[in-house]
Amino acid sequence: MAGNTFGQLFRITTFGESHGIAIGVILDGCPAQLPIDLDFIQSELDKRRPGQSKITTQRKESDTVQILSGVFEGKSTGTPIAMLIPNEDQRSKDYNHNTDVYRPSHADYTYDAKYGIRDHRGGGRSSARETAARVAAGAIAKLLLKHHGIEIFAHVSSVGHIQAPNLTHDNIDELLTTREENIVRCADPATAHQMIEFIDGIRKDGDTVGGKISCIIKNCPVGLGEPVFDKLHADLGKAMLSINAVHGFEYGSGFAGSEMRGSEHNDIFLVNEGQPKTLTNFSGGIQGGISNGMEINFSVAFKPVATIMHNQQTINAAGEAAEIKGKGRHDPCVVPRAVVIVEAMAALVIADQLLRSKTNKLD
Amino acid sequence: MAGNTFGQLFRITTFGESHGIAIGVILDGCPAQLPIDLDFIQSELDKRRPGQSKITTQRKESDTVQILSGVFEGKSTGTPIAMLIPNEDQRSKDYNHNTDVYRPSHADYTYDAKYGIRDHRGGGRSSARETAARVAAGAIAKLLLKHHGIEIFAHVSSVGHIQAPNLTHDNIDELLTTREENIVRCADPATAHQMIEFIDGIRKDGDTVGGKISCIIKNCPVGLGEPVFDKLHADLGKAMLSINAVHGFEYGSGFAGSEMRGSEHNDIFLVNEGQPKTLTNFSGGIQGGISNGMEINFSVAFKPVATIMHNQQTINAAGEAAEIKGKGRHDPCVVPRAVVIVEAMAALVIADQLLRSKTNKLD
Amino acid sequence: MAGNTFGQLFRITTFGESHGIAIGVILDGCPAQLPIDLDFIQSELDKRRPGQSKITTQRKESDTVQILSGVFEGKSTGTPIAMLIPNEDQRSKDYNHNTDVYRPSHADYTYDAKYGIRDHRGGGRSSARETAARVAAGAIAKLLLKHHGIEIFAHVSSVGHIQAPNLTHDNIDELLTTREENIVRCADPATAHQMIEFIDGIRKDGDTVGGKISCIIKNCPVGLGEPVFDKLHADLGKAMLSINAVHGFEYGSGFAGSEMRGSEHNDIFLVNEGQPKTLTNFSGGIQGGISNGMEINFSVAFKPVATIMHNQQTINAAGEAAEIKGKGRHDPCVVPRAVVIVEAMAALVIADQLLRSKTNKLD
Amino acid sequence: MAGNTFGQLFRITTFGESHGIAIGVILDGCPAQLPIDLDFIQSELDKRRPGQSKITTQRKESDTVQILSGVFEGKSTGTPIAMLIPNEDQRSKDYNHNTDVYRPSHADYTYDAKYGIRDHRGGGRSSARETAARVAAGAIAKLLLKHHGIEIFAHVSSVGHIQAPNLTHDNIDELLTTREENIVRCADPATAHQMIEFIDGIRKDGDTVGGKISCIIKNCPVGLGEPVFDKLHADLGKAMLSINAVHGFEYGSGFAGSEMRGSEHNDIFLVNEGQPKTLTNFSGGIQGGISNGMEINFSVAFKPVATIMHNQQTINAAGEAAEIKGKGRHDPCVVPRAVVIVEAMAALVIADQLLRSKTNKLD
Repeated sequence: MAGNTFGQLFRITTFGESHGIAIGVILDGCPAQLPIDLDFIQSELDKRRPGQSKITTQRKESDTVQILSGVFEGKSTGTPIAMLIPNEDQRSKDYNHNTDVYRPSHADYTYDAKYGIRDHRGGGRSSARETAARVAAGAIAKLLLKHHGIEIFAHVSSVGHIQAPNLTHDNIDELLTTREENIVRCADPATAHQMIEFIDGIRKDGDTVGGKISCIIKNCPVGLGEPVFDKLHADLGKAMLSINAVHGFEYGSGFAGSEMRGSEHNDIFLVNEGQPKTLTNFSGGIQGGISNGMEINFSVAFKPVATIMHNQQTINAAGEAAEIKGKGRHDPCVVPRAVVIVEAMAALVIADQLLRSKTNKLD
Repeated sequence: MAGNTFGQLFRITTFGESHGIAIGVILDGCPAQLPIDLDFIQSELDKRRPGQSKITTQRKESDTVQILSGVFEGKSTGTPIAMLIPNEDQRSKDYNHNTDVYRPSHADYTYDAKYGIRDHRGGGRSSARETAARVAAGAIAKLLLKHHGIEIFAHVSSVGHIQAPNLTHDNIDELLTTREENIVRCADPATAHQMIEFIDGIRKDGDTVGGKISCIIKNCPVGLGEPVFDKLHADLGKAMLSINAVHGFEYGSGFAGSEMRGSEHNDIFLVNEGQPKTLTNFSGGIQGGISNGMEINFSVAFKPVATIMHNQQTINAAGEAAEIKGKGRHDPCVVPRAVVIVEAMAALVIADQLLRSKTNKLD
Repeated sequence: MAGNTFGQLFRITTFGESHGIAIGVILDGCPAQLPIDLDFIQSELDKRRPGQSKITTQRKESDTVQILSGVFEGKSTGTPIAMLIPNEDQRSKDYNHNTDVYRPSHADYTYDAKYGIRDHRGGGRSSARETAARVAAGAIAKLLLKHHGIEIFAHVSSVGHIQAPNLTHDNIDELLTTREENIVRCADPATAHQMIEFIDGIRKDGDTVGGKISCIIKNCPVGLGEPVFDKLHADLGKAMLSINAVHGFEYGSGFAGSEMRGSEHNDIFLVNEGQPKTLTNFSGGIQGGISNGMEINFSVAFKPVATIMHNQQTINAAGEAAEIKGKGRHDPCVVPRAVVIVEAMAALVIADQLLRSKTNKLD
Repeated sequence: MAGNTFGQLFRITTFGESHGIAIGVILDGCPAQLPIDLDFIQSELDKRRPGQSKITTQRKESDTVQILSGVFEGKSTGTPIAMLIPNEDQRSKDYNHNTDVYRPSHADYTYDAKYGIRDHRGGGRSSARETAARVAAGAIAKLLLKHHGIEIFAHVSSVGHIQAPNLTHDNIDELLTTREENIVRCADPATAHQMIEFIDGIRKDGDTVGGKISCIIKNCPVGLGEPVFDKLHADLGKAMLSINAVHGFEYGSGFAGSEMRGSEHNDIFLVNEGQPKTLTNFSGGIQGGISNGMEINFSVAFKPVATIMHNQQTINAAGEAAEIKGKGRHDPCVVPRAVVIVEAMAALVIADQLLRSKTNKLD
């Protein structure tokens, strides 16, 4: 069973290689009658698109999405929604030098070992280009969530050692505006400035650096998440860990929670505007794997991009020593472009669990 | 689609409530002809069993497992292996006071909201008792991995602020022996001593504390993990996050990797004993979601147990203010008993991906 | 991926061998709050139970079902419902002579070839005893359907060449009463009498005979069935073909429809009591794979039971010629006991599609 | 869970409406290194293509397939293979008169009732045009089967009352040649002649007629099929019943087997060229749901096409009486074009079970 499908009821299957003809996605299970706003889908893709600023790769791709099926007169019909994103800049010769050489901390060796054959051009299927298909499908998930009043917001919370302060307010529209006003996509303008300077220096060094993205989900209905294996945070964790370069996931109190005492950590229940709420939110909006109506929050750690502009020792497919130097056009730091991917995957998880929750009780 | 099933080809479905008649599991997909060692399965359950030491809950359960099907003359037959663990100590009256009151940071409220009905006794389905079924199935997964030479080892790497040093050797048999010589299950005896003292103090305070478990997997074949969504670490992450009280997962360089540069983080390839290996292992044994033959390593963060022996303010199902005080028999720190659960879930993931890898290439 | 699971949202996984400790089932996905009537479940099992009349096997099994989980104070809780049916009459010695000999038209050879190991006692997993677990789960599906006003009725429509007339009325309660008044479970008393005589003669010959079961489903809501692969009749067909000894399935006009012209076969739409209905029902209540509100009807063909009391030539596992003579206690005709299995599988399919339909449209 | 996916390990997901931009398929799970012959895929599509002869619809579509991903230098890479078939002849105005009127025995009403929205153009998603995507994926399944020496052959065995004699030899290459020498695709030339005359008359009447397709699979390895629900014939049955217009499926002795006695029906084992074989083959090559090495055979019944060139009474979406007359370009008999669809779906099932069988036993 190959692993190119995600979700149970709101389910996507993606396809495509970095330098093939096209990449794309089939979304199966989108409820009928949802208005599908193509401009919105495209605007989401534009946030992930390469070449959007001086701190991203200069590879040129318009990433123009086309809907092939499943939408009629502007609305979903309940049938599969297929979306296609042609690959335009197939400058494969940049990658010809990599045919037989295993780039350090890339997937060249493991793909070769697993399949015995590999589309080496630009990383082939292992390229983060595949995530454009997720963003397209995630945009439709966002449209469904919006219909239900659920909001998602992610931003860059750290780059290297530069850490943004915790968010001090939760007006999603304002946060989005602030975030999009800087090219690193951090909702704190002062930190954003520092981050951009830092990344630019890294880029000039021919090096790369990691970072973190934090995400909040507001107005999630109580009751999403399926015990015991498909807990809401377990599905979110898998979704995030499936994004290229992610090495860690935590929600609520996260790793810091492992150092706390129960008497500090417990979220006391109270009633607020007639609804059960908690005084604190170390649970991150999820208890027993099920959303409790509080804000859901989580963080995702990205390792530094593996392609650097330095000479590196490595081996080739024959097991001989070789030397490699990055020549393609790559990102010095992946997190600014990954913000919308994190949101897309979160939206896909929430949409899926929303549909799954429709059958929890007798009606 | 309810979430009580885990795995694709080596697949478990668990059932049972904390204070019902029994809990259990069906394992479907175990290859035929595997010798099934019932004593080993029981010995694994004994490591998770309540009442095993002064720093665990004093609830009494022998957790005796019975195999109902799928094994003939000591070997798996390829048909479903059903295992049953009767609940013996159904002292439900301990929980009667909780019928209508929502315990802070438990799943009482969310289950009620999701299903509109709840088996309140001992947490019902949300109890960590369910994990015994996973341990039984995980033991069979370990037997399959052992057949293929793959070894798994987890231990308690932190309790509260007490952090064990990194493991300095990787002889699994020795590590297991050392770990089992102390009741906290830390492979560093000096740290273990500190941890036990600390937990004992916490227990006397009527409080609880969180901790971390670290796990390594040795001799994993190259090529396990299915791109793009079912990356090996994504499946491991989901498995871990599905364990009660887990709030975080990281592998390889983890969260610390988000602060590193590519030039530090890249794992240089070399050839060792004829096999491609890497000089460092910030990749945690997984590249592009596929095992690369190096040691796989990850860490799991557990929040403190929610049940404390203090008075706590809360609300009841009617939304009225209420007070609650833990009366049951609970763990001051969950990690010593969770070590075998982490191993079991890791074994289930590896077994599943091992089977899935059988069809990657033409034969 | 082993095949012991059926259904997507209302999903069962069965386990157990004919002469093992027990057989059973986990039902995952039953909506919470459904009243679970244990007596009804047992009464369904009684209709499948061996030894119930002179024209069934004389093997003695009470087939007493026990619910282990998922039900609290008489209602489903939304967690997995596990049910256990202990095997009582494990008279395995009857089968010792079959250890190495492949019984003609049984699964002995194919199981051996597939798995290289086989629980030969009573056919092991290949025994129709497994269907008792389906009947138990199907009974809960019936309870769910009843809650939604959907009714299912099956009966024996032919035995050998003896064919019952088509049903002339559709009062399910009356049909059920009439059917249960004879041991062959045909709703036409005169035909039933003939069938019983015929089967009794076959039994005295030490032979067996095939037959057909016809099923109708009333009050099925419009809109069940998921195009394009999970058409309602495709799911029903698979469900029926998964029952032991079934060799054919047809719905609506069935095989006879292949000889008709479109001008005869088309079901003209009209409005009846404000609802779209059709004048004829060659579509069998399903159009484009989706229920149209008319009565659903289908037929299932069963081959004759393979175990006969005659000497038969065969081979053993070593490929040597051997002779075999049935000694166990077997059915001369399987259809009277299979009626409730057909109903159970149909109920499982309808319940599953009913839940799946909850997410077809935006709400 | 929407139903546009088929298969477990060799898995397809199709998309597209009759008069949308394109239809297509993602095939996930094809083993790496399989040579992909695009010409062969196209030649299979040509057999299903409209406008191929006087007894098929005159709608013009070249049905030219394009591979978008998953193939590199002529071989599968183990990543998803996406294939696109643009819709050329989108002459939707032919269908404008059907916007609100429910065509008898079509899926117009049920789609409307299920989704509340419908792409009415040419039947939208319910059109048999979707099966072109299956044929493309099925062609790759055939390439995989060919690699393993497995052969599939289907032909038209009846049209209306005209029934072909049973096949008298089993040389697949010869049978294919004979079949393709006539436009009705019957392997018996004399019968083919009759069928063509008959269909041509039907066409001139503006009417349609049903028919049957029979299929054999040769050299299928012993051991395919997963008990208990995913029996090989249950998967084949579901595959066939998911094809538009299919109303019945039988394998081996089929419906006729329900009239036989066990003493006639049992297939006696013997050894032939060192392999266990059976003297007769009423089992249709499958015992206990598992292939036994004998020829697999089954038949599929198709109802007459619903679109006829006569005036028919019906209703519209408002529930008012309406009249309809077919105007589009439709097939008088669907079976000649469906032969390759039957083969494609059979190939997909066998490929899937072949991969699933790789993990049955310990290796």
